[in-house]
Amino acid sequence: MSPAGSSVRVGVVGLGRLGRRHAQNLAFRVPGASLVAACSPVEEELEWARDTLPSTRLYRDYASLLDDRDIDAVWLVTPSSLHAQQILDALRAGKHVFCEKPLSLDVAECERVIAEAAQYPQLRVTIGFMRRFDPSYRNAFDRIEAGSIGRPFMVRSQTCDQNDPDGFFVRFAPTSGGIFLDCSVHDIDVARWLLGNPRATRVFASGTIALHEGLREFGDVDNGVAICEFEGGRLAMFYASRTMAHGNDTGSEVIGTAGAMTIGRVPRANRVEIADAHGVRSECTPTFFERFEDAFLYEAQAFVSAVKGGAQAGASLADALEATRIGCAMRESLASGQPVVL
Amino acid sequence: MSPAGSSVRVGVVGLGRLGRRHAQNLAFRVPGASLVAACSPVEEELEWARDTLPSTRLYRDYASLLDDRDIDAVWLVTPSSLHAQQILDALRAGKHVFCEKPLSLDVAECERVIAEAAQYPQLRVTIGFMRRFDPSYRNAFDRIEAGSIGRPFMVRSQTCDQNDPDGFFVRFAPTSGGIFLDCSVHDIDVARWLLGNPRATRVFASGTIALHEGLREFGDVDNGVAICEFEGGRLAMFYASRTMAHGNDTGSEVIGTAGAMTIGRVPRANRVEIADAHGVRSECTPTFFERFEDAFLYEAQAFVSAVKGGAQAGASLADALEATRIGCAMRESLASGQPVVL
Amino acid sequence: MSPAGSSVRVGVVGLGRLGRRHAQNLAFRVPGASLVAACSPVEEELEWARDTLPSTRLYRDYASLLDDRDIDAVWLVTPSSLHAQQILDALRAGKHVFCEKPLSLDVAECERVIAEAAQYPQLRVTIGFMRRFDPSYRNAFDRIEAGSIGRPFMVRSQTCDQNDPDGFFVRFAPTSGGIFLDCSVHDIDVARWLLGNPRATRVFASGTIALHEGLREFGDVDNGVAICEFEGGRLAMFYASRTMAHGNDTGSEVIGTAGAMTIGRVPRANRVEIADAHGVRSECTPTFFERFEDAFLYEAQAFVSAVKGGAQAGASLADALEATRIGCAMRESLASGQPVVL
Amino acid sequence: MSPAGSSVRVGVVGLGRLGRRHAQNLAFRVPGASLVAACSPVEEELEWARDTLPSTRLYRDYASLLDDRDIDAVWLVTPSSLHAQQILDALRAGKHVFCEKPLSLDVAECERVIAEAAQYPQLRVTIGFMRRFDPSYRNAFDRIEAGSIGRPFMVRSQTCDQNDPDGFFVRFAPTSGGIFLDCSVHDIDVARWLLGNPRATRVFASGTIALHEGLREFGDVDNGVAICEFEGGRLAMFYASRTMAHGNDTGSEVIGTAGAMTIGRVPRANRVEIADAHGVRSECTPTFFERFEDAFLYEAQAFVSAVKGGAQAGASLADALEATRIGCAMRESLASGQPVVL
Repeated sequence: MSPAGSSVRVGVVGLGRLGRRHAQNLAFRVPGASLVAACSPVEEELEWARDTLPSTRLYRDYASLLDDRDIDAVWLVTPSSLHAQQILDALRAGKHVFCEKPLSLDVAECERVIAEAAQYPQLRVTIGFMRRFDPSYRNAFDRIEAGSIGRPFMVRSQTCDQNDPDGFFVRFAPTSGGIFLDCSVHDIDVARWLLGNPRATRVFASGTIALHEGLREFGDVDNGVAICEFEGGRLAMFYASRTMAHGNDTGSEVIGTAGAMTIGRVPRANRVEIADAHGVRSECTPTFFERFEDAFLYEAQAFVSAVKGGAQAGASLADALEATRIGCAMRESLASGQPVVL
Repeated sequence: MSPAGSSVRVGVVGLGRLGRRHAQNLAFRVPGASLVAACSPVEEELEWARDTLPSTRLYRDYASLLDDRDIDAVWLVTPSSLHAQQILDALRAGKHVFCEKPLSLDVAECERVIAEAAQYPQLRVTIGFMRRFDPSYRNAFDRIEAGSIGRPFMVRSQTCDQNDPDGFFVRFAPTSGGIFLDCSVHDIDVARWLLGNPRATRVFASGTIALHEGLREFGDVDNGVAICEFEGGRLAMFYASRTMAHGNDTGSEVIGTAGAMTIGRVPRANRVEIADAHGVRSECTPTFFERFEDAFLYEAQAFVSAVKGGAQAGASLADALEATRIGCAMRESLASGQPVVL
Repeated sequence: MSPAGSSVRVGVVGLGRLGRRHAQNLAFRVPGASLVAACSPVEEELEWARDTLPSTRLYRDYASLLDDRDIDAVWLVTPSSLHAQQILDALRAGKHVFCEKPLSLDVAECERVIAEAAQYPQLRVTIGFMRRFDPSYRNAFDRIEAGSIGRPFMVRSQTCDQNDPDGFFVRFAPTSGGIFLDCSVHDIDVARWLLGNPRATRVFASGTIALHEGLREFGDVDNGVAICEFEGGRLAMFYASRTMAHGNDTGSEVIGTAGAMTIGRVPRANRVEIADAHGVRSECTPTFFERFEDAFLYEAQAFVSAVKGGAQAGASLADALEATRIGCAMRESLASGQPVVL
Repeated sequence: MSPAGSSVRVGVVGLGRLGRRHAQNLAFRVPGASLVAACSPVEEELEWARDTLPSTRLYRDYASLLDDRDIDAVWLVTPSSLHAQQILDALRAGKHVFCEKPLSLDVAECERVIAEAAQYPQLRVTIGFMRRFDPSYRNAFDRIEAGSIGRPFMVRSQTCDQNDPDGFFVRFAPTSGGIFLDCSVHDIDVARWLLGNPRATRVFASGTIALHEGLREFGDVDNGVAICEFEGGRLAMFYASRTMAHGNDTGSEVIGTAGAMTIGRVPRANRVEIADAHGVRSECTPTFFERFEDAFLYEAQAFVSAVKGGAQAGASLADALEATRIGCAMRESLASGQPVVL
């Protein structure tokens, strides 16, 4: 742990759209953190950093950043396929790690990371399932803890993106892991978290291509559904879509023996309601950025607190392994048409 | 009162748009009532009745209908200027009376009707403030009675019509009594009813012409606002509009010392929510017909029950007088720019 | 068909809670219908009829009612296990039939009814899937027809009852057919109807017992979920529950390529919103009666129109067969843990 | 103006509850600002600053802080009665000024500040009407600018606090200026801003004491209403309350010739909806802190941008004068029972 009084010195790795958000949070909005370094192989991204983060050291390659002795923690916002190795490299260099989800698309690789990370108990590793830090998800979690809905036994959760007519995610399909590992992995983590971390026992998945025929050759779909059974009679239903007309519609419901809660039932962008010839309406959050802007910030603040000696916060490597394990089973079920026992 | 076992024989007077609704309710949907007669001077309206109400006797003039001995009650859906005299004529003919609001646009005339009606204690007279029978308004009233919001001390209420580009109500302006007597009179009745029938002590009104300049010559406005003070520190705020873009937006709020209630906060037409490029939206009730369809029916059922010996239900002549008195004061305040003491 | 001008003479069979609602609608609120007869083996139910329906002939057994030549149509609100035979008996007696859902819990029996009913093309048979007549469901259907959400490809639908601590449905479990045939059958019909009547190809179901352990011995659950695949890449997800804390929460969502619609997202009982120490809240419909009161009425009106020569309205025997077939497959999948191919 | 590249050095004055929020924003969340100094006469507040703001110079009196040459701007979160003189003192010391609302409770004093401030055109002065920076209010403003509701002609706006049984504001009544100057002043500013800064011509106000009789001796009320007329036929209705049961319920509605918008119709605390024995409900924001947390931050960011040479943002001294002028007229109308012409 870092001394409580001093700043946690962070190096961010990857300065794409999401990386920049993280970098700006770390630079300006997280008391107790200093963004001292950033790394990207892309010249245009480094230029952005030069303009926006004047006191940040810039690196073109990850190894050089890891050599920087004046960095306490790395913040990985890199392609998913690099996560596992980059986490291990960082641990070996003695640095705490925050890594965007997923840990890996491969269960065995997740397990290898966990095994090796166990050798570095003094270093924090958190995987970025940011919904755990969204104030509304957190409020729901706290209510469950307080017993206000009785025993929670079912979660329904969805990750639905606004349709991108350009079909960016179609080009991304070969490496995304498919809709369940790319999108539903968040819902899986939410379900486990809100249901008390039960072990999943069986999944069944289905899906369809509503608009993006280009996905067919990769065995992927643009709308996927799944049922997940957990031990103790707990259940989850998942829905993921790439084709919403109205915006990013991400939300969850948790049902207990004495009540239920929805988080984000209507994905309203703000508190404005418009009354006009279309009726009475709320505009919607266009992407997950707008929806989870605060969550990304609180996530960063919590990680910095943890590094300073506070409680572990957010998803552990073990949580991330479970999300990948369940997501992979859903992908397998979609392909085979059969339930997959875990 | 009519004997409990037999049907109340009703004659409806006036078969315009609203009159037809009443006629159909009375003919088909009110157990214990028989629509035995209808009256209209308009040939096209009588033809509609011939087609739709096959067993109903038809009259061209009101006096003939009153001569019909086999009618227990008249149902007046006629121009406002006729209401007072028609009520008196019906009472003199020994018939119960349901009359659409308002009783009269003239306070003195209201008082004359009340004075004479007192001579017919065996006959029921109800003025059609149908919101008292809307299930949601009724639910709010019952909660207040049960004490669930403490002592109610303030009502905010509005009657807002969808804009009619043809400006029908502009042509109607010379006889409508103005926006407060035509529209807010409902809100006034709601406020009195929900606040426990306090006596109004003072009003102040203002207004503007947003779209319909033709109203100016009649001293009327298409958007009017008012504050009404009642004895005991109770208050009401009113808003009436002719220019809504999204539909008929009629609703009320009652505020008490331990809670508040809104009735009809969003004027949704039904339970459908649409999610598309406009956001997430509810379509709205286009007119008061759609909004208060059930209220008109329950109102008719309640009147028939009252005639059969049940409790008086709905607004009495005294209630109607108060609504006219307060509405007239609001019109006077709009014209003078000064508060009017009642 | 009955002559357009004359009344359809109806005999209602079964005067339990739902039967009485139907009887009152037919007696008082359906123009063109006369409730001329009623039948029940239960003395207390006949007494209710004597008090409430004074001009209705009463029978103790179904055969006697069928012998009544002055009945055009029977209205069956009887135990599900009797439906199939009673429909056939009515057809043989030359009477139109309205029958509450389900047609039968047995697919083969459904098919036998269809085969024999084909011999009576002049007689109308409708199965009471009332949601098709709910104004909000109807509005959603009409919008889909108008193309406003593009091509609909997915339905999510649920039937969730308020928890009954007495567990009436546990005692009912031996004959109810289980949660899917008792509850989800409505959602199945909605999904088929809104998706354009596609053929179901495969289902997978799961479930849990949250509160009512007594169901276990019958292989039933109090919370069930299912995925149903239809031809053409269409999908449905279903949820049924007996354990809601807040009321009857029945609703559906239909998702298309250009938009989505929810019907009944919040099961609000009325238009009142209460603001107090609990926050801002809407009370909920306690049972399906309150939620679908209008639908039952419109359903009756539509059936009477159909008998008088109008278009077939509501679910046909073929629709009812499909609902039973899919519901049975869901039950089988729940028991086996395997998907069931149709 | 400060050089664009360097940090704006801010000294905060007043470290009460709201002052601390401002201080934390300036210290940690406003890029381009440094909180270099803080001032309070209260020892406990200085201790808080010592713990929370380690690199901030602390002063016990305002004059000493103004003597600090290394401060570019002061941030006044002090009692309202001190605002006017403190602003002038800061300007004379060559410092930019952000000052919490209101500028003053006295119109003449407002005018004196404006007159003298005109001698310091190089210094920025902003009064903290934070709603202008709330993302939802801002979104509504931008839509109006884009013409999406046609010509806005009416605003309804309210500031309603959760009831404080301890009646803190009763003790505060002698100096608060009364409910209109303390609460409605925000609504007045919103109305002017959303309606295009029209000149107010006349106001009428009323009010009642629902719960806090202690206000009576100060001529104040715990629920106040007002109508404000502006030139060009524009109108506003205001409501302020101290006695809400459900939370801080602050919101506005703007009505135009082609549509309307509400901002904050339901004061939901977050995106969680709870379904339980109370119905379906949203918990509410308890105080204006929770509701406007983001607005306070964006306000600070905008002020710092303005000091660095960006556009003036937020309410000017002239805006603040108008808010006070209208609020004073409302107070006068409440006292006299007569409309007040401006």
